[in-house]
Amino acid sequence: MTDTTLPDAVHAERVAARLRFVKPSFVREVLKAASDPNLISFAGGLPAPELFDVEGLREAVLMALGEDAKASLQYGVTEGQPVLRTELSKIMAGRGAPAELSRIVVTTGSQQGIDLLARTLLDPGDVVLLERPTYLAALQVFELAEARLVGVEGDEGGLDPDDLERKIEAVKAAGKRAKLLYVVSTFANPSGATLSRERRLRLLEIAAKHDLLVIEDDPYCELRFSGQAEVPLVGLAHEVPGAEHLVAYLSSLSKVVSPGLRVGWMVLPEWLLPKVVIVKQASDLHASTLSQQTAARYLQSGRLPGHIVKIREAYQARAGVMMAALRRVFPQNVLDFGEPEGGMFLWGRMSEGVDTMALVTKAMQAGVIFVPGVSFFPDTPRGNTLRLSFTTTTPEQIEEGVRRLASVTLD
Amino acid sequence: MTDTTLPDAVHAERVAARLRFVKPSFVREVLKAASDPNLISFAGGLPAPELFDVEGLREAVLMALGEDAKASLQYGVTEGQPVLRTELSKIMAGRGAPAELSRIVVTTGSQQGIDLLARTLLDPGDVVLLERPTYLAALQVFELAEARLVGVEGDEGGLDPDDLERKIEAVKAAGKRAKLLYVVSTFANPSGATLSRERRLRLLEIAAKHDLLVIEDDPYCELRFSGQAEVPLVGLAHEVPGAEHLVAYLSSLSKVVSPGLRVGWMVLPEWLLPKVVIVKQASDLHASTLSQQTAARYLQSGRLPGHIVKIREAYQARAGVMMAALRRVFPQNVLDFGEPEGGMFLWGRMSEGVDTMALVTKAMQAGVIFVPGVSFFPDTPRGNTLRLSFTTTTPEQIEEGVRRLASVTLD
Repeated sequence: MTDTTLPDAVHAERVAARLRFVKPSFVREVLKAASDPNLISFAGGLPAPELFDVEGLREAVLMALGEDAKASLQYGVTEGQPVLRTELSKIMAGRGAPAELSRIVVTTGSQQGIDLLARTLLDPGDVVLLERPTYLAALQVFELAEARLVGVEGDEGGLDPDDLERKIEAVKAAGKRAKLLYVVSTFANPSGATLSRERRLRLLEIAAKHDLLVIEDDPYCELRFSGQAEVPLVGLAHEVPGAEHLVAYLSSLSKVVSPGLRVGWMVLPEWLLPKVVIVKQASDLHASTLSQQTAARYLQSGRLPGHIVKIREAYQARAGVMMAALRRVFPQNVLDFGEPEGGMFLWGRMSEGVDTMALVTKAMQAGVIFVPGVSFFPDTPRGNTLRLSFTTTTPEQIEEGVRRLASVTLD
Repeated sequence: MTDTTLPDAVHAERVAARLRFVKPSFVREVLKAASDPNLISFAGGLPAPELFDVEGLREAVLMALGEDAKASLQYGVTEGQPVLRTELSKIMAGRGAPAELSRIVVTTGSQQGIDLLARTLLDPGDVVLLERPTYLAALQVFELAEARLVGVEGDEGGLDPDDLERKIEAVKAAGKRAKLLYVVSTFANPSGATLSRERRLRLLEIAAKHDLLVIEDDPYCELRFSGQAEVPLVGLAHEVPGAEHLVAYLSSLSKVVSPGLRVGWMVLPEWLLPKVVIVKQASDLHASTLSQQTAARYLQSGRLPGHIVKIREAYQARAGVMMAALRRVFPQNVLDFGEPEGGMFLWGRMSEGVDTMALVTKAMQAGVIFVPGVSFFPDTPRGNTLRLSFTTTTPEQIEEGVRRLASVTLD
């Protein structure tokens, strides 16, 4: 008897209930296909590899394997290397949300932060609120946690506080309690939207009123092209009575230094931190100390601020080319999109009735790829939406990709 | 209202049920204390840092950030970098358990392998069988998975197949089904025991008969001082009808290259792999590509076999010094221990009635530390047991540590 002779049903019984209905993500499959060099990909959420500060990282890794070698190669504490947390604490202060080292936990990418919080906080059936649309790998985490997902409307200003309050009341009316809100506060994936200070304060007041925990996911905030930076929710929480202990903040070096390092971090309220650390310890003991020490040395080198300027300028230029090309080719009633002040994505809405999932198959044949919007909805997906990433394509590729997209859309 | 003004009970309700009763591990607390330089620690399960092949790893990391820079710094596939999986496939062949690249998934340390399997396979209340004693961070994982833990007796030959069968029947008689067995097959933590080929085959027959999934955790097998290597369960499974699709194998570079890299791997049956990959993706997308590419380059360099010889010789010498010192100082009826053929640990049994948990407090005051055995039991702990690690102490420290241990035990 071998694997292949067993009917699938036999194996299905071997796995946990939470896995029986989960499918591999469409985006993952799309990204696999995207390795075809002739395909122009607007699909990935990847940083531009030609912009990596390889020289700076090489210097950092040589220090990590020079005087820091034993720390970089040995087991470390679950919370993360203190030398790195010291640097992350400075980054938090720069964002207007000072956090002592003792409130910071390093994660294996900020993806792990979402997962650790879900495992620490959620029992099956607990209600989680998420923006419509939202980050799809967060949806995957909350589905694995067997949570009940409830979508909150979002617009070009991000999550709508009025709808948030309506949804909390609707959950209550159904005899349940909304436990957790997951929100990308700045340059959201996929919408590109940023919450204003006013909405941030409203959101915190609502959280305090309903004892709602908030996961603030903030990997993109440094990629601002224009406008003023907003203070993260975690930095505003002390201004709102009752909200201070309700926000767990996540961020990452993935978009500004390198995703391959898998260095993310959490800033946690005091009561939550020791619980999360227990789950982190069971999950992987700690993040790669080689990555952590390398990241610490890189941050110490002072190269990051200049590097961020370089990435911002490149992404802003690419976003500009993409928006101009789309406007030139598509009438607004055929394809409309928001104008983000930063980040990596455009969020598009096609004419009512267009099915972007069907469109992507035709687009692939024409040599261009994007992510259909349905993947980003916790409930009742809008089939006419799509996400376009502008970060990993040259201006020429963007022009050509938009032409290809038009050829399958406008025929 | 701030964190500190809220009663603990309010916060307790905020976390998932699985977290309410979990305590931070004693060993973790012990390891924190072990940073006192005057303390001689037999507590950690750490490799000797002075033996790290820093030069070889520095060469490897320079290649990882040289010609491989984009791969080392960019997002990668969840399964792990193909170049690394190719090398791991060769390692598996060397262990007598050939595995194609397509069956290998790289994990963030083999700790993550245990956790991913638990999350993929277990619903709350599922029965997991574990050796008495066993690896304590595995216990923590299965407790977080809300599994029911059932201990199986072990002796100097490792897990006892007769007791395994008895426990499976007992579980069945209680109206449940034993779903999973977790076993460290070679130089077990903490017992040091290795399963013979005969026991391995018995165990696989029992697994096939009862449709029992087996997690084989094998991080120590390369640290053999004497005797012949045994083929892992995963390499024997095809010899036992019905067992081939039941074994998930875990191993790691932590004990032979560096734990800081956090590079572990799994060899999975075909039906299980895509499910585990979904959970891995939600957990952290993938392991550090910097670590993975560095590990791949290091393995390609051909330095590992010679490096393993060096570690083995050092650990064998230290184990010898520790065993001789213990025998010189302790009568066998006061402290008895097994003689492992490899690994990192001695497992001691003190006289009946001795409480090693009380003893460790006195020992710390005398300047030596070990791990009380109770931490390693899934049920009904034996309070007179203890684990002694011989890897990170010099022969002189071992002699002195044993003297200190005797001073608080024999007075």
